[in-house]
Formats: sequence, structure tokens, C-alpha cells
Amino acid sequence: MNPDITRERQNASFDVEKLTYILDGGPEKTKRRRQIEALVFSDPDFHEDDPNFLSRSERYDQAVRKSAQMVLKLREYGIADPEEIYYYKSCVHPGRPSPLDLHLAMFLPTLLNQASPAQMDRFFMPAWNLEIIGTYAQTEIGHGTHLRGLETTATYDPATQEFVLNSPTVSSIKWWPGGLGKTSNHAIVLAQLYSLGNCHGLHAFIVPIRDMKTHEPLPGIVVGDIGPKFGFNEVDNGFLKLENVRIPRENMMMKYSKVEPDGTYVKPPSSKLTYGTMVFVRSMIVGESARTLSKSCTIAIRYSAVRHQSEIRPGEPEPQILDYQTQQYKLFPLLSMAYAFTFVGQYMTEIYHRISEDISQGDFNQLPELHALSAGLKAFTTWETNSAIEVCRMSCGGHGYSRSSALPDIYVEFTPTCTYEGENTVMMLQTARYLVKSYRQAEKGQQLSGIVSYLNESQNRRVQPQAVASRRPLVDINDLSSLVQVYQQRAATLVEMAAKSIQQELQRRKSQEDAWNNSAIDLVRASDAHCHYVVVKVFNDKLKGVGDTAIHSVLSTLALLYAMHGITKNSGDFLQTGLVSVPQVLQISVRIKELLSQLRPNVVALVDAFDIHDKKLNSVLGRYDGNVYENMFEWARRSPLNAAEVHESFQKYLKPLRSKL
Amino acid sequence: MNPDITRERQNASFDVEKLTYILDGGPEKTKRRRQIEALVFSDPDFHEDDPNFLSRSERYDQAVRKSAQMVLKLREYGIADPEEIYYYKSCVHPGRPSPLDLHLAMFLPTLLNQASPAQMDRFFMPAWNLEIIGTYAQTEIGHGTHLRGLETTATYDPATQEFVLNSPTVSSIKWWPGGLGKTSNHAIVLAQLYSLGNCHGLHAFIVPIRDMKTHEPLPGIVVGDIGPKFGFNEVDNGFLKLENVRIPRENMMMKYSKVEPDGTYVKPPSSKLTYGTMVFVRSMIVGESARTLSKSCTIAIRYSAVRHQSEIRPGEPEPQILDYQTQQYKLFPLLSMAYAFTFVGQYMTEIYHRISEDISQGDFNQLPELHALSAGLKAFTTWETNSAIEVCRMSCGGHGYSRSSALPDIYVEFTPTCTYEGENTVMMLQTARYLVKSYRQAEKGQQLSGIVSYLNESQNRRVQPQAVASRRPLVDINDLSSLVQVYQQRAATLVEMAAKSIQQELQRRKSQEDAWNNSAIDLVRASDAHCHYVVVKVFNDKLKGVGDTAIHSVLSTLALLYAMHGITKNSGDFLQTGLVSVPQVLQISVRIKELLSQLRPNVVALVDAFDIHDKKLNSVLGRYDGNVYENMFEWARRSPLNAAEVHESFQKYLKPLRSKL
Repeated sequence: MNPDITRERQNASFDVEKLTYILDGGPEKTKRRRQIEALVFSDPDFHEDDPNFLSRSERYDQAVRKSAQMVLKLREYGIADPEEIYYYKSCVHPGRPSPLDLHLAMFLPTLLNQASPAQMDRFFMPAWNLEIIGTYAQTEIGHGTHLRGLETTATYDPATQEFVLNSPTVSSIKWWPGGLGKTSNHAIVLAQLYSLGNCHGLHAFIVPIRDMKTHEPLPGIVVGDIGPKFGFNEVDNGFLKLENVRIPRENMMMKYSKVEPDGTYVKPPSSKLTYGTMVFVRSMIVGESARTLSKSCTIAIRYSAVRHQSEIRPGEPEPQILDYQTQQYKLFPLLSMAYAFTFVGQYMTEIYHRISEDISQGDFNQLPELHALSAGLKAFTTWETNSAIEVCRMSCGGHGYSRSSALPDIYVEFTPTCTYEGENTVMMLQTARYLVKSYRQAEKGQQLSGIVSYLNESQNRRVQPQAVASRRPLVDINDLSSLVQVYQQRAATLVEMAAKSIQQELQRRKSQEDAWNNSAIDLVRASDAHCHYVVVKVFNDKLKGVGDTAIHSVLSTLALLYAMHGITKNSGDFLQTGLVSVPQVLQISVRIKELLSQLRPNVVALVDAFDIHDKKLNSVLGRYDGNVYENMFEWARRSPLNAAEVHESFQKYLKPLRSKL
Repeated sequence: MNPDITRERQNASFDVEKLTYILDGGPEKTKRRRQIEALVFSDPDFHEDDPNFLSRSERYDQAVRKSAQMVLKLREYGIADPEEIYYYKSCVHPGRPSPLDLHLAMFLPTLLNQASPAQMDRFFMPAWNLEIIGTYAQTEIGHGTHLRGLETTATYDPATQEFVLNSPTVSSIKWWPGGLGKTSNHAIVLAQLYSLGNCHGLHAFIVPIRDMKTHEPLPGIVVGDIGPKFGFNEVDNGFLKLENVRIPRENMMMKYSKVEPDGTYVKPPSSKLTYGTMVFVRSMIVGESARTLSKSCTIAIRYSAVRHQSEIRPGEPEPQILDYQTQQYKLFPLLSMAYAFTFVGQYMTEIYHRISEDISQGDFNQLPELHALSAGLKAFTTWETNSAIEVCRMSCGGHGYSRSSALPDIYVEFTPTCTYEGENTVMMLQTARYLVKSYRQAEKGQQLSGIVSYLNESQNRRVQPQAVASRRPLVDINDLSSLVQVYQQRAATLVEMAAKSIQQELQRRKSQEDAWNNSAIDLVRASDAHCHYVVVKVFNDKLKGVGDTAIHSVLSTLALLYAMHGITKNSGDFLQTGLVSVPQVLQISVRIKELLSQLRPNVVALVDAFDIHDKKLNSVLGRYDGNVYENMFEWARRSPLNAAEVHESFQKYLKPLRSKL
């Protein structure tokens, strides 16, 4: 054990294990998590070669091998709880998506949700037993978020009772679905349904794409891998071009909408039914942000405790880089953010489960709020985490660039969350739509409830940003609840400003749609402020439930740092709206420095509390024992370029060159 | 040619070719640049396989082949001007560093600058003819920026008149030098010199590391590749462990300091002599930021002109994504930044050449200012560009993640500039040291000249941020010169605040060094504001020299956008210091939207003016002809995973699994 890191641990003021329980949601959960980790990490069948040293084809091969093993093991151990399966998988493929992800997370659930009983009989067990391996083919090379724009067609032929599927243009080729390129033999294809000359919009069809025995592509199917990406090396994201591919009528997903044998189209009873999955996935991404940020902070903070560099006082030994104020200012606010997002993740899970029960009882009332919240928080947490990973990486100096640090991979595997499952700007605008709608309801005197209820008050206050700047702010900057209020009022003001911008555009005779587009900057800003408020509020609420004094104290410091740092970073908003005064902004800067010093002795313990197994972290810089350099040297020696002392290029190019010059 | 992009070009209000001349520094330069491009891109000897489809070893192999070719060609064509060599190389290895970079950019120049005449006779021609291939080995696994911390030793043995080199610890293993792992047979090693029992600090030694004939490592040399990184796949960044390696006394670089045969150490005459190279390299990085940002904007803006998505008005065809205000707000400020940094790059080159002449005449007066400026601007432009690349990438939606977009590679090849040649936070603090020193001189009544002369005025004004907030600002937000003033005053205020923070810490009986460290956040912020001011000022100055009315007009819009966007992003600073009022901040938000609309018809032409050859851009999304989708499909089909229709993992793992479930 590295002596620096040992000393750090001795200095902690709280019980790390107890904090881990809070983060996991109770000691039982911690215990079970560790059991699953032990199952995977001690299992020789999951031994893997370091993917950094493999070609893409070898990485894919290894991932398929481990996925196949995983399916066997899950049955062997009888692990069936979705949350436990999810965690088991995250240990088998630590930090890396896998070729079977879409089969497990999209193909099977879509069957469960949208297949008719007859279809369940035909498809579910074969898919469960991996005879059918499926993916979910929605996006096209020319079309993403906007479902109405998708071009793939499924035309019903009553003569043969078949659908004929086509990719009519280059831009309609299905593009991006994970596992489509090489792994899957079936795809759920989203296509515009045509029957009896009418288009009935987007529907889902089960399309066999590869021969069940030979795995060769079927006639009319052009399928393959879309090539290397930023990360996702293990996944065969694929393309699919359909050329008059015929499938039986019974392969349209028929639980809700139907096409009768004669071609008559039957509408689905409600459009809200598929809403829930989307909300669920986005909530999960919020949790993923928290976990990814926790990982990155663990690596950067442990390494900063071990690394010595330069000098603060001349003549003295090189200090730990954790002692530099600039390093603290880079990392500690991110650590506070990791805690904040963890609690927001817990909050989203709770709220999702609560509202799911309402929905199952036919009560859709709270769904719009949850939908807006999950969209905005997905965008807010992924954007913040995305930047934060890179700050962590760069805070590790040169070694942050080495793949042995794990930080480059953490970044490339995480950054797609900003785009998939709803592009972030689009997500922010969805949330804004809900906020503006709520604001208008309040304006009309309707009493709002739930998380947007603060918009009621803004109607009473009638904030005028220009006039308000001279108002005397009443905030107590050292009181977290008071800061929550300030964040709330900032959100209220920015929602109001966005709504007024739309109003002004309309007064200039712009159409509703142009007014919206011309206010989009303000709308995104308002959503961002709303989400920021929710995060600060949730953190504050969480503190109320923490009984352990030592833990309460350190979490309070983190929460205060999170809130104050946000004010500094967005001080223009707070000053502009008159919520905080200039002297207060200056006081906050001073307070932040004090909070950094206050946290300094606890930061290693605070990342230890995330309790991320070395095998999950997979980072030489972030090792629990802090023995960085010797292990980095050992890792480097295994680099494939070191297999031969003399690389063949010497004989081929460099040696012959001498005689030519 | 894609019709959307053709229409964009028809709408431009200015002559693209004329703007290209301004960016290149004159039509002659444009012509010569295009000649060099034609030389390389039409040369079949430089044909390359897409690196995205190769293993790392193959990428390295291809890079060595092309580097060897390049050396032959440069001699064949008689290209000897350093700037032209640099450009030729950037076409041979477009956007990618190469294994011979350190030989060309560090080993040869170090010989020229630090070798004695006798050493030049021995080493230069063999190195020029690539018999000797060298690298520059400074950083160690445990030591980076701080030179005094390096541990490698070179101990003089008068008995044999040799130096004995050692890596005494794991942390002292040389780590990171490019070309060290596999390519070089010599290294200039930086080591602590010991002679007659005394340590004389860091000196440079020429150390043979591989056999000249067999290329096998020499006795006592443990050398190899440090393993895969975030980018830099073509480069064999290496490690070097020295175990009692003996080199003749004559292998110490002896132009300035010496060790006599009896071990007597002779000091160098001045320590400022190696200063210039460092400043030069940092100035070059500023230019590199501009070029990288220009590339990224070219890709994102052209693609945004071609891509149609979602809807603004219902029922109408999907609009170009360039019509969304949020997309404009992401990209146009970055475009303005690309122009700003291009002009700052030109400015740095001019100032460097001017001051270099002073230096060659023994006048070192302006070196500290240039040193501070190059450090800060290196940090400022690389940080800004680093984030900007990712904004560009994410603005391309899913396809930005594909390696075919080139944006992932642009990011990974660029991001190390934030760390190498001076870690950015350290750079900002170096600039701050100069600013605070200047501020104190002004405080003492000394009249400052040069770029920091504005600090004279702050002494007269005695700004008190708290009191100043109520002051009535006099800025005309629509006048760029007036905005330059505002940036200047912001910088002055923040330098003053940082200086006062140090003062306050000292009053609390902190040591000078602790006071500095406890004010580091404020110091970085002050440097950042200073650099921001310089960028806005340089952009404004540049405009004065632009004669063409149409070009002047569009560049003025860009400059105004750059300045206003900076105020919005940092509105807290401007409000806090009372330089801009709340109504003005709101007006600026409105004006920014107007500027976005104003620029909209010209943005494709503005990126065309960068005149980046398709082969340099190497991006399917950024193609000049805008034919994105068909070329992306073609690219994907060449993915190595598509070599066989059925991947072997199917037979190995998936098929056998069926019988087990």
C-alpha cells in the first residue's frame, strides 16, 4: 500500500463503510452488490485479455464469448432480478457496452410490451434461449430523433398476406443499431406502414435478417458493421438495407395496432403506452452519469494523492498535487457533483417506481412531469459528466492520456449518452416545453403542483430582471436551504424570460413555431436552470435523512460546495436577476476556498466510499493500493509493440533509407 | 455536388478566395500552400490505407514508411524552409503526429542549438541522413513539468572519462518521448549531472540506445513502447530505463556548459539562451489551435447544411439543421473563435519574429512579455479549442461518433496540447506571475509598456469591485472598440483582485508561497481574462487592415459575435465589476440572436475560406461536395468486420450456446 494514500485514509473524519451503505441504498444492497462482484471477478470463465492490446475484431470476439458465458451463468445462478442482471453484466463487461446489449435491453422488452400472445408464443422462448438474437432498428443514416422522418417502408400485399420491406433511398438505410452488424439474426424494424394505398405511420416489424443455421444474410438483406467509432469497439453497430424483403403478416407487432388479412388497418387504443420505457431508460442514464463521474473522481483523486510534483515552498520535497488549490478547484466540485448525481439517480428511481404504480392503475397524471424531468435531467447530468470526465483526465497530467489510466475509455464509452436516447438539446427543449406550458397555466391562475409548483409564485412576484437588479437580496449564502431557494428563483426567472421571448416573437407576427425556434437559446437556458435547481434541492432533501453526524457533516460541506460552485459558474444569472449581490458573489468565492480546505482531508475517503472494485475501475492510476508507477511499467511492457524488440518497419523502411540519402 | 451546399455557396455575400488570402497571409502564400498540397496528394508514394481500419502496429508501420518517403522527397524537391517542411509533413501525415516528429523537431534542433562544433561534426550529418535517429528524453514516469524533480543521474567517472547514466528508481524511468519506443537509436537524455561529488543540475547527454546495425537495444538499456494512448496511435511514445550505461565524456552537450576531462564543471554563460525555442513552440500551438478549430467548424457547418432533421413548421419538409437557433448558437460562436485564433496565431508569429531579431542583437527586454503571452495564449486557445471540438462533434448527432466524421480523431490528436509543452494550469500561473509583477510595478509608480500597459490605468482608477457595481457603465455594446475596452478593464480588475488576494493572505501571516497557492484560483482567472482581452483586441486590430468592404463587413460581424458571446458566457465578471449593466447584458443576448441570423447565409462560405483540402480534412461529413450518406455507406462497407459475412465468433460461441440453454 502506498504510504501517501494510507495516510489519507487515516485522516478521514467519518466511517467510509457507513457512507457506502447510504450510496448503495442500505447495507443489504452493498452486501449483495459485493456478492455479485465476487461471482464475476473470481470466475475464470470471465478472464479477459486487456482490450487495449487487442484488434477490434478480437475485442468483438472476446465480448461475444463473455456474453455467451454470462447468459449461461445467469441461469446457473438463477439471477433474474433486472437490477441484478444489469449489475452482473456491468461486471462482466466493465465499463463497456456489449454486442448483446440490444437483444437484452430492447429486443426482449419490446417483445414483452408489443407482441401479441400469438407472437409471444412464436418468438419469446427462442429469443430467450438465444436462438433468435435480435436488435432494434430505428435510426436511419439520414434520420435520427424525428420519427416521422424515417423512410423505410413496409407495404402490405394482401395477395400473399405479406409485408414487403424496402429501403427506398440511401438515406433510409438503417444505421447505428447495436448488434445489427454481425451478431443478430433478427431485427425489430421500424417502418412506415402502407396498406391499401394509405400510410399509417411508423410501426414495428420482426424481420429475420440472417439464416438461422448458417448465419448468412438472407436474400434482399444487405447488412454489416458501420465501422469504427469513438468507443463502442466491442459493439457491431450495424447497417441494414432492405430490398423487397417479404415477411408474413404475423410479423408486424400486433399487440396494439393491427393489419387484418384483407389489409384493413386497426389503430392502437392509446399512444401513451410506450412512454414508460423511454422514461425508464433516461432515468437509468442519470444513474449512469453518477457512476461514471464517481469512477472518474476516484481515479483522479487517488492519483492526485499519490502524485508529487513541482513545489509550493522552495527547498521542500515535491508536494502531493492534491495540495494545489487549482487541483482542488478542478476536482472537489466534481466530487460534490458525483454525490449530487448519485442522489438524483436514487430520486429518479424512486419517483419512477412510484409513478409506474400509478400508471399500472391507469393514472397517467404524473407522467408528463416525470417525462419532462427525465428528459432534462438526462441532458443535464450527461453534459456535466461528459465535461467532468475530461477535467478529471486532464488533471492527471500526461498519464491521463495513457489507456492504462482508463479515463480515455471512460470518456469514449460515456459520451454517446449525450446523443442517444434523445439528443441533449432536444431533451432540454422537451423539458422547456413542459415548463413553458406550466408557466402559462399558472399565468392563467391554475394552481400548479409537483416540482414546477414554484412557477406559481413567480406569477405573484412578476419578476422584471432589469428592475430587480437593485433589489436587496435576502439570501443567507451559508444556508443550503436558502441557496435552494435562490436556485428555484433563478429557474423561475429564466422560465419567465423564455416565455416572454416567445411572446415578443409572436408580437412581431412570427408564427408559433418560428417564435419557439427564435427563443430556443432562452428555452435551453431555462431548462438547464430548472434541472440545476432540482439537483440542489434533491441533495438538500437527502441530507435531512442522514443520521450519522460525521457523515452528515461531510455531505453538508459537499452540498454547499456544489451549490456555491454553481453560483460562481453562473454568477451572471444570479446577479442579473438580483438574487445574489456582488459582495455575496465575492464572499462565495472566498467560502469556496474554505470549503476546499475543509474537504481536503476527506476526499480520498469520499471516493473510497463509492466502493468501486479495482477490476471495475480497471485503472492503473486509480488503484486502491496507490502503487501506480510499478504497475504502469508492467502494463506498458505488455504492449503489443513490445512483442519484438525490433519492429519490422526498421528492416523495411529505415535501414534501406540510409543508402538512398 | 449536393444541392443544399451549392445553394449555400450562392448566397455568400463576399469573395471566398480573397478571404483565403487574408487567412494565409497573401495570395502568394495561398498559391505555395496549394502547390505543396498538390505535390503530396497526387503522389502515389504517399498512398495510405485508412488508419481507422488498421491495427496499431500497422498504423505505426505505415507512418514509418511515409516518413521515410517524406525525407527522400523533401530532398528531391529541395524543400528546406522550416515552414514549408512543416506544411509538407502536415499533408503527409494529415492531422496525425508521426514517429519521426521528435527527431525532426527536437533532436536536430537541439544539436544545432546545444552541440559544440566538435559534436556537430560527429552527430549532425549522420542525424540529417537518418543513420542516427534521435528523440528527446526529458519527462520521467514520476516527473513532468518540474525539471528539478527529475531523477535520472549522469555521474562522471574521471578514470575512464565517461558518464555513467542510471535510472535509480521506478519513478525515474524516462516516459512519453515520441519515437523512443521503437524508432530511435539515440536519445538526448536529460539527467542530473554529478561530478567530483557535486550535483550541477540538469544537463543534456547524447545516449546511443540501439545498435546501429541490428537496431537491438544496447547493454544496460531497457527500452520499449509505453502502450496505447488516447490518440497518437502512429507514435511509439517510449520508456527508457538506464542501468549503468556508459557514454564518452564528449557525449554531454557542450556548447555552453562543460565537464573537463578531470571532472571540473564549467557553467553556462546565460540561462536565457534556451528560452526562445519554448516560446516558439507555444506560439506554434496557438496556430495549431486555430487550424484544428477551423477543421472542426468546417466539418460541423458543412454537415449542418446538408443534414435535414425534425421540423420547425409542421407539414413542411425537414429543415437543414443549420436553421435551428440552438445549432447556430453552438457553432457560429466557434466559427468566430476560429477566425479570432487564426489572427492571434498570425500575431504571435509576427511578434515572435520581431522579438527574435531583438534577441539576436542581444536585446532580451521583450522576452518576458512574449514568454508570458505565449504561455497564457497557449493555454487559453488549447482549452477553448479542446471543448469546441467536442461541441462540433456532438452537433453532428450520431454520425459525429463515427470515425468517418474525423472528429473523434481530431479530438484525440489535439487534446494533448493542453498538457504537453507546459501543462495549461501551470501556463496560466506563469502568465499570472508576469501580470502580478507588472501590477506591482505599476503600483510603485513604474510606467508599464506593451500589452500590460493597461495596468497603469487601474492604478489611477483604483477599482473596488464591490463599490463599482452601481457605477454607470459607458460602454457602447455595438462598438467593437468599446468592447475591447471592457475586456481590458475586466482583465485589469481581475489582476487587481488576484494581487489583493495574495496581499490578504500575506496579512494573515502566510508565507509568500502559501499566499500564492491560496490565490491560485484568482490568478488563473486573471490570466484567462488577460488572454481573452488580447484575443478580442487582436481581432479588432486585424479588422483595421481589411480593405475589402464585403469581407470587412462579415469579419466585423464575426468579431462582434466573438466579443458579445464572451460577455454572455462570463457575464458574472462583467456585471460584478460594473463594466456592463443588467439591461446591457439582456441587450447583448438579443443582439447575439440577430448576429446569428445575419451570419447564417455566409457560414458555409466562411468555412470554405479556410480552404482545407478534402484529403487534409479526411471527413465524410465535411466533404466539400456535401455527398455525405453515399460516401459514409461506402466507407462502412470497408470496415474490417465486414471482410467475412459471418464472424468466427458465431461458430465459436453463439451456435454452441443453443444446445446448452
